Amino acid sequence: MEEIKIFAPASVANVSCGFDVLGFCLEPVGDKMIIRKTDSSGIRITKIEGQDLPLDVKNNVAGVAAEALLKEHPVEFGFEIEIYKNIKAGSGIGSSAASSAGAVFGINKLLNSPFTAHELIHFAMQGEVLASGSAHADNVAPLLLGGITLVRSTDPIDVIQLPVPIELSAVILHPKIELKTMHAREIIKKNVTLEKAIVQWGNLGAFVSSLYNEDYDLMSRSLKDVIVEPMRSLLIPEFESLKKASNDAGALGFGISGSGPSVFALTKGIDSAEKVFRSLEQIISSIGIDFDFYLSKINQQGIKILPN
Amino acid sequence: MEEIKIFAPASVANVSCGFDVLGFCLEPVGDKMIIRKTDSSGIRITKIEGQDLPLDVKNNVAGVAAEALLKEHPVEFGFEIEIYKNIKAGSGIGSSAASSAGAVFGINKLLNSPFTAHELIHFAMQGEVLASGSAHADNVAPLLLGGITLVRSTDPIDVIQLPVPIELSAVILHPKIELKTMHAREIIKKNVTLEKAIVQWGNLGAFVSSLYNEDYDLMSRSLKDVIVEPMRSLLIPEFESLKKASNDAGALGFGISGSGPSVFALTKGIDSAEKVFRSLEQIISSIGIDFDFYLSKINQQGIKILPN
Repeated sequence: MEEIKIFAPASVANVSCGFDVLGFCLEPVGDKMIIRKTDSSGIRITKIEGQDLPLDVKNNVAGVAAEALLKEHPVEFGFEIEIYKNIKAGSGIGSSAASSAGAVFGINKLLNSPFTAHELIHFAMQGEVLASGSAHADNVAPLLLGGITLVRSTDPIDVIQLPVPIELSAVILHPKIELKTMHAREIIKKNVTLEKAIVQWGNLGAFVSSLYNEDYDLMSRSLKDVIVEPMRSLLIPEFESLKKASNDAGALGFGISGSGPSVFALTKGIDSAEKVFRSLEQIISSIGIDFDFYLSKINQQGIKILPN
Repeated sequence: MEEIKIFAPASVANVSCGFDVLGFCLEPVGDKMIIRKTDSSGIRITKIEGQDLPLDVKNNVAGVAAEALLKEHPVEFGFEIEIYKNIKAGSGIGSSAASSAGAVFGINKLLNSPFTAHELIHFAMQGEVLASGSAHADNVAPLLLGGITLVRSTDPIDVIQLPVPIELSAVILHPKIELKTMHAREIIKKNVTLEKAIVQWGNLGAFVSSLYNEDYDLMSRSLKDVIVEPMRSLLIPEFESLKKASNDAGALGFGISGSGPSVFALTKGIDSAEKVFRSLEQIISSIGIDFDFYLSKINQQGIKILPN
């Protein structure tokens, strides 16, 4: 294989009770990438459409991730990457993760898979370091493993694939306001009370259990964030109204996707997701903020290969 | 039924990564209690053997828990309670929980079960308030529900019964030193770094997953406590040596049982538990501290009714 075309989906990290550890990926929205072998060595990014992002390999998350992989697996040839962005940078649904994970997924395939999906997480994380200043895996892991993932540790990397209840669906609402991941990180306090930390880990443990038991009621009771949401939600217009509307419309839970500004709701069934979306739409429209939205089942496959 | 005889087992709370939320109960060690209906109303504690504990109902955890139940379910008759303590108070393996949970379990049976096991947790917790000054359910929940439990919330009470991998076994070592729960609580800082909290909830989420998948390797990687153990272990002689010996002998994990001074190890299989115990025994014997120990499978039933 000399060339591969892939679809790298958007993803939701944190998922309320799982700050920095939980993530899942979506079906309908994602980037396309074409990666091909070249005679000359090294990585080149030859085209980026859909976003104004640097072609310079060292300043592009896909380039950084790809170079990290090649450093561990040197070859005499090289790769060029074309990126067709559909996930907006800074939207909070894993734009950088799609490029980073997509690049290493594609190159690994073209190399006949010297690395496992788990091993690729390490390389993709190097792109995340460039994007946000911290080595987190909560977006790249679900893209590489599929479904819902829990990052137990990033050093060493230890990621668990969690079961996906069959009806679990998501609504994503992206209010088009600017919010840099680094800003959203700065607002978070470095210390938390032990009391709140206990609430958070009780919820996370219960959420994991609810996935195994397909217990949607427990899932709903567990999808809470007492640590980060109270701080970060201040950056998102009408967050509390959106949350109330989502819950009133029957969502299992509602929270900030990644570091925002996108918000997500989880629902039982895609019909419920649509109902929740209509409630959110009323509020976001009434305040005159432009937005994108997506309704999706949980993407169990992650990144996929497209026909050429 | 006019009289009931029960066995209320010892239990291990916290379980490394699950401070204040996880607990499981043991098979071989526990208290016996006889509870019988009386014509006169109210609760009386008529006998306590094995420990020097107050017969005064308001100062005895079994009495307080029993009265909390009767307050919600008033009856014209009463109950007398005999307690045959085998679990030492202050040992860190749920001595107060056994009395509290045992009392409400027995009385509920004699009342023809007006309350579910989940509902009894609330009453048993009132005994815990008397014993330790805080309303925790991590010891009483596994006694009332059986197996391994996760307390998602105590207000309202929301407890999840987790699956018990078939070979999972435990070693308990009780060094006979005095350590009051209230002291052990005081040593804990009220604030933790978000960084450590994330490590802790990643481990807890992974531990819950490992129980569903019977993944003993993941269980072992997850049984870590970066929050409380570093502080509380200072109160336990030779804690680090015991931990190293336990891990070297093949334990899945090792930590403080409840607020100590008992320590526990979890193992795959009872043979492994015995091997771990022998390693611990060498160390504890060499420093001249008297001790008790127990080897046990995880008790899936919790409190049980004994033949009269």
